[in-house]
Amino acid sequence: MAPFVTRLLLAASSVACLLAQNAPKYTADGQLTLPPDYREWIFLSSGLGMTYQPEASRPPSFTNVFVNPAAYRTFVSTGKWPDKTTLILEIRASTSKGSINQGGSFQSGVVAIEGHVKDLAKFPGNGWAFFAFGTSSSGKLLPHTEDCYACHAEHGAVDDTFVQFYPGLLEIAKQKGTLTDRH
Amino acid sequence: MAPFVTRLLLAASSVACLLAQNAPKYTADGQLTLPPDYREWIFLSSGLGMTYQPEASRPPSFTNVFVNPAAYRTFVSTGKWPDKTTLILEIRASTSKGSINQGGSFQSGVVAIEGHVKDLAKFPGNGWAFFAFGTSSSGKLLPHTEDCYACHAEHGAVDDTFVQFYPGLLEIAKQKGTLTDRH
Repeated sequence: MAPFVTRLLLAASSVACLLAQNAPKYTADGQLTLPPDYREWIFLSSGLGMTYQPEASRPPSFTNVFVNPAAYRTFVSTGKWPDKTTLILEIRASTSKGSINQGGSFQSGVVAIEGHVKDLAKFPGNGWAFFAFGTSSSGKLLPHTEDCYACHAEHGAVDDTFVQFYPGLLEIAKQKGTLTDRH
Repeated sequence: MAPFVTRLLLAASSVACLLAQNAPKYTADGQLTLPPDYREWIFLSSGLGMTYQPEASRPPSFTNVFVNPAAYRTFVSTGKWPDKTTLILEIRASTSKGSINQGGSFQSGVVAIEGHVKDLAKFPGNGWAFFAFGTSSSGKLLPHTEDCYACHAEHGAVDDTFVQFYPGLLEIAKQKGTLTDRH
């Protein structure tokens, strides 16, 4: 095959793969549209019953965190989040007894979904905004007076994100020297 | 752009995307090579301290399960696993106190990795085989006399896999009518 056509094919394939890695989309009234394919995004980590308060939440829920592939690849290269990063927090119920399982916990239905977006053109300051989906496919913007903003700004290991709870990314941020002192 | 070139570009882009969705690879002595990009595969679910025995394992570990994207897409379409499916079970330590977290559990370092492969040309019966990586990048084949084979054959919700613990796939298998009666 002629080198020109080969280069054209490779360029087109890269574009097609990148097109699957969505930038955030919003409804006309400014809600974040739940990415329909977020379960095929990059999984960062999962927790069970995590709490930043002295008393634990009851009942404990699983928290799965996903990020869009384009932002993940930038993080792997640089240790930083690019503009248009979207993190999706999926909260699922936990079950202990079921099928042959007799102890510990496995995941069951979705309880609620939250989003954390970096969009410099849309949001003030460093561009991060939180959205609460509940079980809907569109997420309401949380006002910047909510505690989550101050807490993430104060304790984020990288930018306003809790990379301290994503062990793979934590290693990358250490290597790249992008960890804050405040986590 | 001429329609012929457009079709050529689309075909090439599909091939390039598919090439990223690895079939299982083996070393010369028959060990399974750990897919270097398995953390970018499709996340199925996570458990904490799951046990199929009366007494719980101590200390509890997280268990993350990933599948290669090509097999996932086939499952979404058909409710069945294709030949060359690879499931990776990543076992991680759990931590409770760290950074601002005060209760519940989050994930820390990798303890061990296991693999479950369907490869009809290589393995007897229905083609499934288990591999134990420990913390190595090559996984030893577990002999078919190990308990895991009989347990998965006896209790697998789809084929020899524990889809009963992957809530998204469980819904798909229900819709497609591919659940066994034995889970």
